Amino acid sequence: MTTARRDTYTPETLLSVAVQVFIERGYDGTSMEHLSRAAGISKSSIYHHVAGKEELLRRAVSRALEGLFGILEEPGAIAGRAIERVEYVTRRTVEVLIDELPYVTLLLRVRGNTATERWALERRREFDHRVADLLKSAAADGDLRADVDIRLATRLLFGMVNSMVEWYRPHTGSGGERDQVAEAVVRITFDGLRATAPKT
Amino acid sequence: MTTARRDTYTPETLLSVAVQVFIERGYDGTSMEHLSRAAGISKSSIYHHVAGKEELLRRAVSRALEGLFGILEEPGAIAGRAIERVEYVTRRTVEVLIDELPYVTLLLRVRGNTATERWALERRREFDHRVADLLKSAAADGDLRADVDIRLATRLLFGMVNSMVEWYRPHTGSGGERDQVAEAVVRITFDGLRATAPKT
Repeated sequence: MTTARRDTYTPETLLSVAVQVFIERGYDGTSMEHLSRAAGISKSSIYHHVAGKEELLRRAVSRALEGLFGILEEPGAIAGRAIERVEYVTRRTVEVLIDELPYVTLLLRVRGNTATERWALERRREFDHRVADLLKSAAADGDLRADVDIRLATRLLFGMVNSMVEWYRPHTGSGGERDQVAEAVVRITFDGLRATAPKT
Repeated sequence: MTTARRDTYTPETLLSVAVQVFIERGYDGTSMEHLSRAAGISKSSIYHHVAGKEELLRRAVSRALEGLFGILEEPGAIAGRAIERVEYVTRRTVEVLIDELPYVTLLLRVRGNTATERWALERRREFDHRVADLLKSAAADGDLRADVDIRLATRLLFGMVNSMVEWYRPHTGSGGERDQVAEAVVRITFDGLRATAPKT
């Protein structure tokens, strides 16, 4: 009987192991055999928890997406001028990325070969559009500089934030701590690096 | 005899095909057989031009690195206040990335499994350090905001610029044209998106 070993494994810990393997090998390159070896439990024990690797992927990217979409329901994202709301959402996006680093990393590496991957890409695009809409509102309020295209600004903003999955490593001092990084992203992208800037 | 077919292939066109295959399959996942099929010439014809796939990788990343390091020799990068020089280097880095998109894409995906890859990573870090040094000089001049760590700012700046290899596609209108993108990156990162910003 494998009950004893199975009991030490919760769906949560299995998910955490699976996400690491997906990131290392790529989702396509991961087999149930790889997951079984990494988790140290039999394939049948894994099937006790989930229908297969696609369910693990869905659960993992869902966790990242719930974190991100959750931001949009927070008071700071709903009330106030659009410019303040988009700054709030930017700061919180960095925080969620750091808090859920492996899950967001996996979400950003999804390619679109399976239904779950295509769904994840679609949801990710939806989040980007929600932020782009906030930026558009801020521009309509006259709070954003007029000489930068909003769609391009959205891509560059997400480019900076999403790059963090490549270089941010917690507790190594390589990128500073969570709040410092979130604040730096907001200050650079909204106010700029320059100490005193000529504004159009 | 393969002379006629070989004559239609210059080292330049072979390099261009190889870079596409390296990007699609990953350098590790590319064999001489893949390169031969993609180029439509025999493996021996490829060996007529280069010693092997590592030489093709070296030539490809050299092209990207020469483009990047070339920027640092340009008058705009050498003369003037550090803040103006670092703005110039940022703008030109975006332009080189767009002009040499496949070569820079490959450079940014290099992993470090071979001597050539480790050399490329080392040179890339060197370029990042040169830009970080310029940012430090600008900070010493009092031209950069004091509340953002320079090392973190460098990573975020390169995060934004380097993200372009993931989403910028020329002539599709997806990211605007070269000059518009370069200008947007400089305006956002140095002056910020905000129309009128409180500065520290």
